Amino acid sequence: MNEIIGKLLEHRSIRSYTAQPVSEEQIRAIVGSAQAASTSSFVQAYTIIGIKDKARRTRLSELAGNQKHVEDCPLLLIFCLDLHRSELCAAMEGIGPDRTRDSLESTEQYTVGVVDAALAAQNAAVAAESMGLGICYIGGLRNKPREVAELLKTPERVVPLFGMTVGYPAKPSAAKPRLPLEAVYSEETYWTEESEIRGRLEKYNEVIAEYYRERTGGARAERWTEQMGNRLAKPNRLDWKDYLASRKLPLN
Amino acid sequence: MNEIIGKLLEHRSIRSYTAQPVSEEQIRAIVGSAQAASTSSFVQAYTIIGIKDKARRTRLSELAGNQKHVEDCPLLLIFCLDLHRSELCAAMEGIGPDRTRDSLESTEQYTVGVVDAALAAQNAAVAAESMGLGICYIGGLRNKPREVAELLKTPERVVPLFGMTVGYPAKPSAAKPRLPLEAVYSEETYWTEESEIRGRLEKYNEVIAEYYRERTGGARAERWTEQMGNRLAKPNRLDWKDYLASRKLPLN
Repeated sequence: MNEIIGKLLEHRSIRSYTAQPVSEEQIRAIVGSAQAASTSSFVQAYTIIGIKDKARRTRLSELAGNQKHVEDCPLLLIFCLDLHRSELCAAMEGIGPDRTRDSLESTEQYTVGVVDAALAAQNAAVAAESMGLGICYIGGLRNKPREVAELLKTPERVVPLFGMTVGYPAKPSAAKPRLPLEAVYSEETYWTEESEIRGRLEKYNEVIAEYYRERTGGARAERWTEQMGNRLAKPNRLDWKDYLASRKLPLN
Repeated sequence: MNEIIGKLLEHRSIRSYTAQPVSEEQIRAIVGSAQAASTSSFVQAYTIIGIKDKARRTRLSELAGNQKHVEDCPLLLIFCLDLHRSELCAAMEGIGPDRTRDSLESTEQYTVGVVDAALAAQNAAVAAESMGLGICYIGGLRNKPREVAELLKTPERVVPLFGMTVGYPAKPSAAKPRLPLEAVYSEETYWTEESEIRGRLEKYNEVIAEYYRERTGGARAERWTEQMGNRLAKPNRLDWKDYLASRKLPLN
């Protein structure tokens, strides 16, 4: 194992930061690394908004369901799907909206933009961690997408997908054990016997229950399948589709 | 700039590979690194299928629009959105399909899965490159999703999103210059003046035209906005939504 893989395996989400700011040079290294990631057909269909202003982070923290670390981190990066810039490219070439609408409003194009934004974000995370910074992804911005968009002044066809808090870790945190490799990696085809998957999930349930037990002095011993099942039974953000449609992304 | 950021900035897609295989140990390091990426609400909503069989890669190469490197690489990884496993978790906890359908069929859950798969993939890319391997993302698998799914035996609610070829580079390749940082990174809000974005795109157009001119001895000097505009004017994969619906992912 080399040093880079060692760092990747060491990743854990950091939710508590010191007051030390992230420097301009660090921001440039993080964003430059994000941009170096692959991009589907070279579209670079994302924009990153960096928030340093405390009042704005306080508001975003509330909108994300009172996640205190959004307020307390020195830098919040917001990764947006950006098809507005793509549309502008076409306009600059004299290609009118009638000729680009089918592409821009398609589920395919949304998928491309979400993938592009996420690839960029993960490179940003790796770059930040390589400099001793910690990060945490914030999906909670999708709870109140209209309010977030208003605050960030994003135009139509630009959608804030998720945030990332960045800063120096104040407290260490533990990495959560992942699914056994054999439960996420299969060769040649998907698993043909469901019992194979089930068996691995049952084994993993014990690992996760033990992980919680250790960390809570026995107060909590949730199984992973229990967490996942309960989560699915409480549908979340069912209005995300309507929100996208309201921003001229009907996902046709 | 540290070594890790240096490696990230060095990234370029590799489309030509030597015959040297990717070892089992390397595959485990790549998949392990993928798994170490953040995952939304701990759902780990993806599965990676590794294809070593040449005949299967030949077929996938055809399906992806005759991308020769899909056939020629020693290892093809296919990143799938996997909500089948999530559903199985619920079933294992006695939570029936009526209680999980709204979540599983939502645009939100699709978005979570696409982000999870892409974060994992980018960690896989970084890990592979750290070991001297080269990679190339393959979006072309979405051209013929039904045929790809049949070949990979993916069940309902599992969708092959994109591939990644992996192997030792046979030929060096050049990194394509990215948008200027100021065209993808904004502070506090999205840019309020469209002319700011336009000016940066015009400057970038010159960079890209020069890049193509140099590499083609003057035969090609395409602007970036021209590429993007032309691409949008030719809608692609408009049936992706219908395909998703046919796999019980109607994106409600």
